[in-house]
Amino acid sequence: MGSGRFVDSIRKKRMGMALTVQEIQEMIVRYVAGDIPDYQMSAMLMAICFQGMNDEELTTLTTAMRDSGEVIDLSAIAGVKVDKHSTGGVGDKTTLIVGPIVAACGVPVAKMSGRGLGFTGGTLDKLESIPNFRVSLSGDEFVRAVRENGISVIGQTENLAPADKALYALRDVTGTVDSIPLIAASIMSKKLAAGSDKILLDVTTGSGAFIKDIEGSYALARRMVAIGKGAGKETAAMLTSMEEPLGEAVGNNLEVIEAIRTLQGNGPEDVKEICLALAGMMLSLAKTKEGETALSFEEGKEEAREALESGRAFAKFRDMVQTQGGDVRYIDEPERFEKAEVTEELAAQADGYIVKMNTEGFGIAAGMLGAGRETKESTIDNSAGILVKKKTGEYVKKGDVLAVCCGSRPEQVTRALAYLQDCIVIGPQQPEPLKLIVDIIS
Amino acid sequence: MGSGRFVDSIRKKRMGMALTVQEIQEMIVRYVAGDIPDYQMSAMLMAICFQGMNDEELTTLTTAMRDSGEVIDLSAIAGVKVDKHSTGGVGDKTTLIVGPIVAACGVPVAKMSGRGLGFTGGTLDKLESIPNFRVSLSGDEFVRAVRENGISVIGQTENLAPADKALYALRDVTGTVDSIPLIAASIMSKKLAAGSDKILLDVTTGSGAFIKDIEGSYALARRMVAIGKGAGKETAAMLTSMEEPLGEAVGNNLEVIEAIRTLQGNGPEDVKEICLALAGMMLSLAKTKEGETALSFEEGKEEAREALESGRAFAKFRDMVQTQGGDVRYIDEPERFEKAEVTEELAAQADGYIVKMNTEGFGIAAGMLGAGRETKESTIDNSAGILVKKKTGEYVKKGDVLAVCCGSRPEQVTRALAYLQDCIVIGPQQPEPLKLIVDIIS
Repeated sequence: MGSGRFVDSIRKKRMGMALTVQEIQEMIVRYVAGDIPDYQMSAMLMAICFQGMNDEELTTLTTAMRDSGEVIDLSAIAGVKVDKHSTGGVGDKTTLIVGPIVAACGVPVAKMSGRGLGFTGGTLDKLESIPNFRVSLSGDEFVRAVRENGISVIGQTENLAPADKALYALRDVTGTVDSIPLIAASIMSKKLAAGSDKILLDVTTGSGAFIKDIEGSYALARRMVAIGKGAGKETAAMLTSMEEPLGEAVGNNLEVIEAIRTLQGNGPEDVKEICLALAGMMLSLAKTKEGETALSFEEGKEEAREALESGRAFAKFRDMVQTQGGDVRYIDEPERFEKAEVTEELAAQADGYIVKMNTEGFGIAAGMLGAGRETKESTIDNSAGILVKKKTGEYVKKGDVLAVCCGSRPEQVTRALAYLQDCIVIGPQQPEPLKLIVDIIS
Repeated sequence: MGSGRFVDSIRKKRMGMALTVQEIQEMIVRYVAGDIPDYQMSAMLMAICFQGMNDEELTTLTTAMRDSGEVIDLSAIAGVKVDKHSTGGVGDKTTLIVGPIVAACGVPVAKMSGRGLGFTGGTLDKLESIPNFRVSLSGDEFVRAVRENGISVIGQTENLAPADKALYALRDVTGTVDSIPLIAASIMSKKLAAGSDKILLDVTTGSGAFIKDIEGSYALARRMVAIGKGAGKETAAMLTSMEEPLGEAVGNNLEVIEAIRTLQGNGPEDVKEICLALAGMMLSLAKTKEGETALSFEEGKEEAREALESGRAFAKFRDMVQTQGGDVRYIDEPERFEKAEVTEELAAQADGYIVKMNTEGFGIAAGMLGAGRETKESTIDNSAGILVKKKTGEYVKKGDVLAVCCGSRPEQVTRALAYLQDCIVIGPQQPEPLKLIVDIIS
């Protein structure tokens, strides 16, 4: 049993010492090669959970994970490419809106997205609820689409950061998922491999985020920004609140419809606000004014607002759907989208203010309704999900409709409704208004 | 990948929560059955290194490890059987002396011993330096030997606590050896399986012990005593100093010769003192006086002294060697023992007091000379080792002989000598006298 001197590295980390660049690089190369066994790597991961890693170690780990597979070359696409990544949320359809806005402002969007994970939705699943939309383009098709339309959103190629895939699978079964530095390395290894020039991270915080406490969210944001910079890519993070679902729609085609409404100027205010902020930030990272000074965040937001309100962003979205084979009749007439067979309303059981929402609970209820996958093989019900009718701080009367559950089987909907009932707290005092954009870290 | 809900137990331990009896028992049963993979167990072990285990958890772990294999039944041997176990030292030949003393006092000694580990020697290796001595007796032979002579010392049967064997191998390659609770469970699982009624632990502390700091040694002693009691066996621990080698001999037949000298009343004072204390403690655990009160430690020591000084203990030792096939001519005439081909003296390089000895260094130097195994397959040079001529606190003059290195090849002896030079610190001030018996925990 055993593998060379790797046990010395484990012992060093256990004692709280920093690993050298060489130790970390060898660790990843040898692990991927099967030369370090899982039982040693899991002990190392657990030691990292307790002792952490400093910024230099973490950057080395992340770049080593990046270099374990393909690193996408986007140089065939002219201009500064900015990637945006969300750490996950409930009702988070921002990519569908922010991508077209940014593209409409002349900044190319060549984005690789993921599928739903746990209680959060995934951009790919949402896009695939548009009939015939293809998320698997070849490298050439992808580059051509971005060059022609300024935007394309596809699934991650198989060979992106395979070390992360292996490490994540191991972490999942060894109780080592929940570690800020390991989460940061996991996310950033894929972002660094995805080929963009700059990175904007949307780090969610609150009851609907993976990391629910504000300190943890700040820590994750700071660690990821440090990794990005350490790896030579300008990186910023926006801390955004996930204390309630974003917008009104949770579920795949429900969220596409809401994205279309937003792109047409009729979306929920919170969705618009966060999308303009994210787009503004991406533009300020990508663009320079005459004299080589960067665009400010406020200037970026103004450009984004103009692209949204003029309808140019919507046109970009429509172009993207068309280029990727999607049926644009659904974009032009969203009422064509398949509707849930069974819907049931959740009624307020008392008068009062909505004080708090267990946002993760909304994600779990949406999963019960068929909007997510229970296992990797499950199929998704595109029309399933929740329509959120009242948000935090609103005053409701007993019997008012708080939300609508949409599913395909009555018992399923009844079960989700009962679950959701406990996720909304009504009280006598109006709570402080939620602050959507908590902070910007750059 | 992955194994049922064991990941939940890992996560619990990681968070610092106590595991239930059922969780721990299942962990061991399933691990031994191959149902929990090494990569999960190593993560659990690392979590235990950081979060520890309470006494109840630790007793459950240890008894589950005990129950993974054979639990020896010594009921065929009349009387209270007391086991003695040392956590390891340099020059520690106490079993060879204490066993015969206790047996001479009418308390049966049915002992399973181990081989040398790292820089410490092992009783089996020492016994095997007596020509033809057999450490592998069948169960029947073992019981018969104890019934006839009152004493037998053999090697551990293969199937004693196999869970410990597997866990130790995993700990060895995952940086999780050095953990007080895991060390305590490892030792005690074998002691509990070895069938004795009561247990005396000789917990060494100082530069020649595995655990060098006094706090760690106290902790180990307390944890092991708690496990023993938790498992229903009266258990005590004696904390003994390993700040210098015990006695004058380090190495296999050198230590046997010193044991014989001690049993004949001509041994070094420190060896005699510690052996009488250990034997006295074992007797006080095993014996009761009229009226059912236990023998006191002092009364036990007096009985032990009488057995030693009368020569009865020596006779027991000789009987044991004879019964186990050893050539007693070597016991009667120790000058028959093979002598090292090459010896070289280590001279003091300055006048002054011996202030400190790096005792582990003596063990390592003895290993360089051929007294230990570099790998499991190495053969031992029975005559190799070190004769310690000066001990801590003695005043020496430049050129005085501090130690003699004994080996088979000149370059080997020269190398060990150079190494040993740095293990003895000479200074102008006489140090505080070492206290051999630090404490008794029961």
